[in-house]
Amino acid sequence: MTSAPLPTAAGPRPQLTVHRLGMAHPGDLSELAALFDAGAVAADEVVAVIGKTEGNGGVNDFTRGYFTQSLMQLLAQRTGRPAEAIWRELPCVLSGGTEGVLSPHYVVFSRRLLPAGKTHAAGIGPEGAHYTPPATGTDAKAQASADTGAPTRANGAAPGALAIGTAFSAPTPAQDIGRWRQVRAVAQAVRAAMDQAGIDRPEDVAFVQLKCPCVTSARAQAAAAAGHAVLTADPGRSMAFARAAGAFGAAIALGELPDDPALEGALLQDFDRFSARASVSCGVEVEANEVIVLGHSARWQGPLRMGCAPMRDALDIAAVGQALRPLGLQAAPQLPAAQAARVAAVFVKCEPDRRGQVRGARHTMLDDTDINAQRHIRGAVGGLVAGVLGDGRIFVSGGAEHQGPDGGGLVAVIAHVG
Amino acid sequence: MTSAPLPTAAGPRPQLTVHRLGMAHPGDLSELAALFDAGAVAADEVVAVIGKTEGNGGVNDFTRGYFTQSLMQLLAQRTGRPAEAIWRELPCVLSGGTEGVLSPHYVVFSRRLLPAGKTHAAGIGPEGAHYTPPATGTDAKAQASADTGAPTRANGAAPGALAIGTAFSAPTPAQDIGRWRQVRAVAQAVRAAMDQAGIDRPEDVAFVQLKCPCVTSARAQAAAAAGHAVLTADPGRSMAFARAAGAFGAAIALGELPDDPALEGALLQDFDRFSARASVSCGVEVEANEVIVLGHSARWQGPLRMGCAPMRDALDIAAVGQALRPLGLQAAPQLPAAQAARVAAVFVKCEPDRRGQVRGARHTMLDDTDINAQRHIRGAVGGLVAGVLGDGRIFVSGGAEHQGPDGGGLVAVIAHVG
Amino acid sequence: MTSAPLPTAAGPRPQLTVHRLGMAHPGDLSELAALFDAGAVAADEVVAVIGKTEGNGGVNDFTRGYFTQSLMQLLAQRTGRPAEAIWRELPCVLSGGTEGVLSPHYVVFSRRLLPAGKTHAAGIGPEGAHYTPPATGTDAKAQASADTGAPTRANGAAPGALAIGTAFSAPTPAQDIGRWRQVRAVAQAVRAAMDQAGIDRPEDVAFVQLKCPCVTSARAQAAAAAGHAVLTADPGRSMAFARAAGAFGAAIALGELPDDPALEGALLQDFDRFSARASVSCGVEVEANEVIVLGHSARWQGPLRMGCAPMRDALDIAAVGQALRPLGLQAAPQLPAAQAARVAAVFVKCEPDRRGQVRGARHTMLDDTDINAQRHIRGAVGGLVAGVLGDGRIFVSGGAEHQGPDGGGLVAVIAHVG
Amino acid sequence: MTSAPLPTAAGPRPQLTVHRLGMAHPGDLSELAALFDAGAVAADEVVAVIGKTEGNGGVNDFTRGYFTQSLMQLLAQRTGRPAEAIWRELPCVLSGGTEGVLSPHYVVFSRRLLPAGKTHAAGIGPEGAHYTPPATGTDAKAQASADTGAPTRANGAAPGALAIGTAFSAPTPAQDIGRWRQVRAVAQAVRAAMDQAGIDRPEDVAFVQLKCPCVTSARAQAAAAAGHAVLTADPGRSMAFARAAGAFGAAIALGELPDDPALEGALLQDFDRFSARASVSCGVEVEANEVIVLGHSARWQGPLRMGCAPMRDALDIAAVGQALRPLGLQAAPQLPAAQAARVAAVFVKCEPDRRGQVRGARHTMLDDTDINAQRHIRGAVGGLVAGVLGDGRIFVSGGAEHQGPDGGGLVAVIAHVG
Repeated sequence: MTSAPLPTAAGPRPQLTVHRLGMAHPGDLSELAALFDAGAVAADEVVAVIGKTEGNGGVNDFTRGYFTQSLMQLLAQRTGRPAEAIWRELPCVLSGGTEGVLSPHYVVFSRRLLPAGKTHAAGIGPEGAHYTPPATGTDAKAQASADTGAPTRANGAAPGALAIGTAFSAPTPAQDIGRWRQVRAVAQAVRAAMDQAGIDRPEDVAFVQLKCPCVTSARAQAAAAAGHAVLTADPGRSMAFARAAGAFGAAIALGELPDDPALEGALLQDFDRFSARASVSCGVEVEANEVIVLGHSARWQGPLRMGCAPMRDALDIAAVGQALRPLGLQAAPQLPAAQAARVAAVFVKCEPDRRGQVRGARHTMLDDTDINAQRHIRGAVGGLVAGVLGDGRIFVSGGAEHQGPDGGGLVAVIAHVG
Repeated sequence: MTSAPLPTAAGPRPQLTVHRLGMAHPGDLSELAALFDAGAVAADEVVAVIGKTEGNGGVNDFTRGYFTQSLMQLLAQRTGRPAEAIWRELPCVLSGGTEGVLSPHYVVFSRRLLPAGKTHAAGIGPEGAHYTPPATGTDAKAQASADTGAPTRANGAAPGALAIGTAFSAPTPAQDIGRWRQVRAVAQAVRAAMDQAGIDRPEDVAFVQLKCPCVTSARAQAAAAAGHAVLTADPGRSMAFARAAGAFGAAIALGELPDDPALEGALLQDFDRFSARASVSCGVEVEANEVIVLGHSARWQGPLRMGCAPMRDALDIAAVGQALRPLGLQAAPQLPAAQAARVAAVFVKCEPDRRGQVRGARHTMLDDTDINAQRHIRGAVGGLVAGVLGDGRIFVSGGAEHQGPDGGGLVAVIAHVG
Repeated sequence: MTSAPLPTAAGPRPQLTVHRLGMAHPGDLSELAALFDAGAVAADEVVAVIGKTEGNGGVNDFTRGYFTQSLMQLLAQRTGRPAEAIWRELPCVLSGGTEGVLSPHYVVFSRRLLPAGKTHAAGIGPEGAHYTPPATGTDAKAQASADTGAPTRANGAAPGALAIGTAFSAPTPAQDIGRWRQVRAVAQAVRAAMDQAGIDRPEDVAFVQLKCPCVTSARAQAAAAAGHAVLTADPGRSMAFARAAGAFGAAIALGELPDDPALEGALLQDFDRFSARASVSCGVEVEANEVIVLGHSARWQGPLRMGCAPMRDALDIAAVGQALRPLGLQAAPQLPAAQAARVAAVFVKCEPDRRGQVRGARHTMLDDTDINAQRHIRGAVGGLVAGVLGDGRIFVSGGAEHQGPDGGGLVAVIAHVG
Repeated sequence: MTSAPLPTAAGPRPQLTVHRLGMAHPGDLSELAALFDAGAVAADEVVAVIGKTEGNGGVNDFTRGYFTQSLMQLLAQRTGRPAEAIWRELPCVLSGGTEGVLSPHYVVFSRRLLPAGKTHAAGIGPEGAHYTPPATGTDAKAQASADTGAPTRANGAAPGALAIGTAFSAPTPAQDIGRWRQVRAVAQAVRAAMDQAGIDRPEDVAFVQLKCPCVTSARAQAAAAAGHAVLTADPGRSMAFARAAGAFGAAIALGELPDDPALEGALLQDFDRFSARASVSCGVEVEANEVIVLGHSARWQGPLRMGCAPMRDALDIAAVGQALRPLGLQAAPQLPAAQAARVAAVFVKCEPDRRGQVRGARHTMLDDTDINAQRHIRGAVGGLVAGVLGDGRIFVSGGAEHQGPDGGGLVAVIAHVG
């Protein structure tokens, strides 16, 4: 899967296809199996999966592990490779918690190598779409040279088509969680994923999705027994540090932050430092930092493009429009059905404002002993973005420490463009 | 408080003032006390309170009782009347649960009698505003005759100004909860409140807020001991029936449903029958059905008007715009600050779709053992509406059975108009 | 697995072995794999599994499905049979929710055929024990004839050794849940399991564990679409009905209730009717009623015996002593370590008292919107029983409708006897 | 209330009376009002209240504030003093959370001065009892001299009768929470309460109940605005530090720890340091450290005595027996009804073991995102102790940091002795 050759300008250009699939429960992969059965996707074309399962999103959320096991079992059956081997190579980034109108779903990224000029006309997903974008008529070489002459921003007129690259760091030991060693491991993995995607410039990266390991009670005990001190034995706190380290790692790779170990003290402290394009999940079921880089590259072809915008706070409805704009989409106030059918996937990060207020009004998320603050904020921001898009199939992940502005987060959209 | 005389066309016209106040905790009435101290409102001018406290909104939510006790204590101090007497006359409708970005707050409705032509220039609340609307220049008599000649819909160009009336039914015994006896008691109380408000036509009613009693475990035991059968001993189910009965009662008074006892079987069964302007809360702390009617009447003066629109489902962002439109407000995508300052109060009812889906995508609200479904939906719809208005101080109440379309609800806004 | 031949008095006698194993998470079967690796148990000797996973025990508890998938995968690997086939034959009864001191664990029942007079000296589990009970010196025939001459009660001096039998009903359609069709399907399956175990008399049955399917939102929708009416679409209510039907089915097979369809109305109504030896779990992941019967039979050999006692209410600490007594165990107030090492497994059913009180003192379990009542009661009764036994590895399952006295439940213990 | 004169050996001896009262909800003081009406207690005899309300016990538990407001209102009515003044003098220590079988209740401590030799024959509470203990026949002077000659331990044959003293520290600013300044303030207040009680020796103190303030989001913001650094802005963490500081303060006053500021680093770090007789609650509604000291003093009379024992872990059922023994009570396995009627109040502290295990078996309390760990442990240990006593009216408080052994806690019982 990650063994695919680096795309080159001369050879056949890969095309990324995105399917957004529903699930009846966290062990339900039937929609993907149906795509395999129908030949719409081949199992060995799958390069990454990002999904939203219906757990609580906390340390004891096992829907992520359940889904992962089920996915790996399906891919093993269909590829003939051992599930364990696939598990080590295929990033499967899951966020638990489908609060409110959010709908459990997963986004399957698959890559197909096509002769130059050919476009793989796959639909957006089985439930709707079968949208076939018009052929673009441009060839890779012309576009690449144009890009060299007039470099464009990833979020403006994107150079080429949506590209993907993935990478895994080495396993992060419990005592490294939330420390600069984890930050650097992430930065290195993001760069490797950019290389694999054929994205040369940091500014062409649209979005980085990470899944980072954290400390559980058991791992804290084990580390202590081995004579290592973990940064914190509090599982929730450890997850926050892991997400912070992931965000800093991405920011370094994207040129948003310097690789300065002195910044270790800024983790969970200085929230003015953040990545505007990184989304980090964290879970008990992974041991290495998993990276998915999405961006635009002239070495890729196809109709998909991606927009990403920072969210200033949990009420920043305008950010959604900003992420839609480069894709030619406009909500007024909601995306019309024809435009909604072009949306392939949506990713949101958000955060209960640490200061206890949203625009001057007190919120109660941080003081609630009954409902975890991340569940609160996912439900609220999910409701907002789903309302604009008219669709609850949105990957909304809490824990946006250093991922977008403090108290806000970011929103990213993949869509077919005409 | 409810002893105020019926407003007449000839005499001085009352003016309704609305203050939206924050609270640091459910026992914090300091902002209202400050208004009293400043003379902005007199304690005996207060005619109703609607608030959102930070409990869980369920049977064991005692933040409502705590707030109520604190409010009654303050009003008793300031009026010299016994708290118990005020409690029996002043509707205090609270909804627990400030999920996500929702902010604990309460809306105080006060009525002042002013000589014709005078306008009481009170601000919207202490935290912002001090908005002084321009004098309208119309006198009541002219407006009333104009209205007679060209009756207009409450949600179009409203006849006169925002008016309020309140009423209490007799205490509803546990065995009547969710039965036609409760429906009729509510209908009668709504009519009494319309009379008090001087609203002659059902179509001039903009919004009815109800608070209905329900069956708790203790009351079910007591009723059983007295030989009475309650409809259900399940507290959550009983709350649903109480809300349904309240909605039907309002619908009868507003001419949306006939007073036909055969419809008792439609409660929680036939969701095509609903009131498009009624919002019903339910709580363990009340024994009678409490009614607040808001509408437009030529016998009132002042700059406040109200819009109300049904929500088709939990993603119906357009409904918010529909409620804002008659008030001259427009969100694109968010209400501009100057317009937001004119908003005096917002009320939303919503509901986790019973069919397990929102626009074809599975939701998980009804199957969640950890978070009550009403908490889920309040957080989601609250996030959506707050995003449009740029403000989390929204009264969002779950349990919208027969209050707006099935799976949806309604949204109502009070604003100062120019 | 269920294809094992019925034990006969003449041939080699089977021996039941019980291993109580820990898990680090719901997908962790490593302790069972280790037993297989060590040869302590063969994969095809496993006849049933009862476990406690760490979910919430409600409709959206997927830890049960995750564990089941993991177990079936392991057994498929080790037996060479398809996981799906094993899943249809091997009862795997899981209860989610390890509140308080309860520890996630699973109990593996395995059966080995041994020549008469031989005893399989397996330990209780990898974490302790390696307890080797003394040879009994009795042979099956003598014991069988003695039993014929002087039949003894299962809970007194047990005839023979602990025996197990399992059975599956046909899948129960959503519209049958909580109706007499489900009751009868369960009764029939319990009788089949008794036959398989070689337990001739109902009074020799010590304990029946059931897992029954229920109605989820999705299944209710599907049934409605097919023109069938489900008893209730409320998932929690449906689970309660499924458990009630299971208990009635067992009670019929055990001679505790007549097979009278008129009793359908007693389900969740007349709580004086119950089985004193049945424990019923319910979950979204099963479609058929799964049955495990445990009892004493002269056709079996080995050192295991079982005691079971009804619990009068949630404070009935004496019931634990009653279940221990026939096993020669005594807690004063706690089981001494040497005796605790002889305990192989513990099963408890319990229930938040519907009347809102325990021994005259109000409890708040039924009115709590934040924590499900079943989670409350499992934590409390689990704490009590764990305190008596000095061990948190107890299968405590809520939802004891018609399983033991109303407001109480039952407690059952398997132990090695000297 | 705290203005009562210090009891002297020569003058009339005070007698402590303890009433354990139920409540229908956190604002229900009707049972205490009934005691006042019946003359069983006079409002100005009330010196302390310890209660268990039915909230969640966390930062957003407002049942404590609601109960307190209601209590102060009642006492103000009955004494004619301002509620605010009583609030500053009367310790009202509430713990929220009646998980499982625990029953909402409150314990009222009242003190009456009686001529030497007279005993105030008040019952234990309105719901049962009316237990009238036999006259002891000893007079204070003889007992006092006997005590001097043969000093006995508080938990053995107690010198004299149960005595009470209370004290308040100055308000603790947010930046002092969890620091040595809070520790010392508590120690000083405990000593003041001992003086008031007439308890001369630390070893005669049976039990110290504290209520300490903590940092909320709002207070953290305020402190930061004023230029002060709080130890932690995490509300849950702050509550833990406040409890730890309270325990250390009591331990210093009881001679269990030295007053060494270097020990500040041991707070929440070195759990081998603890008080075996201190119980600390923490809440958002108090600003000062409130202290109640209970012990035995020859200057008091009456039939009440108190036992207290440390709990080794959450399964330490033997500790309950140890606390009962000096009171002449024995559970086998449950307290017989006649003995249970002599129990006046029970207080328990407990703690989810930080190491993730109880006696080698993994527990899941610390990794649960759905239910707070303190709610878990209260339910479990409450179930255990209630089972031994046959009564759910037990004050069980989580958060036992440095209050009893690590992972355990303590249990204390007040009873009438013959």
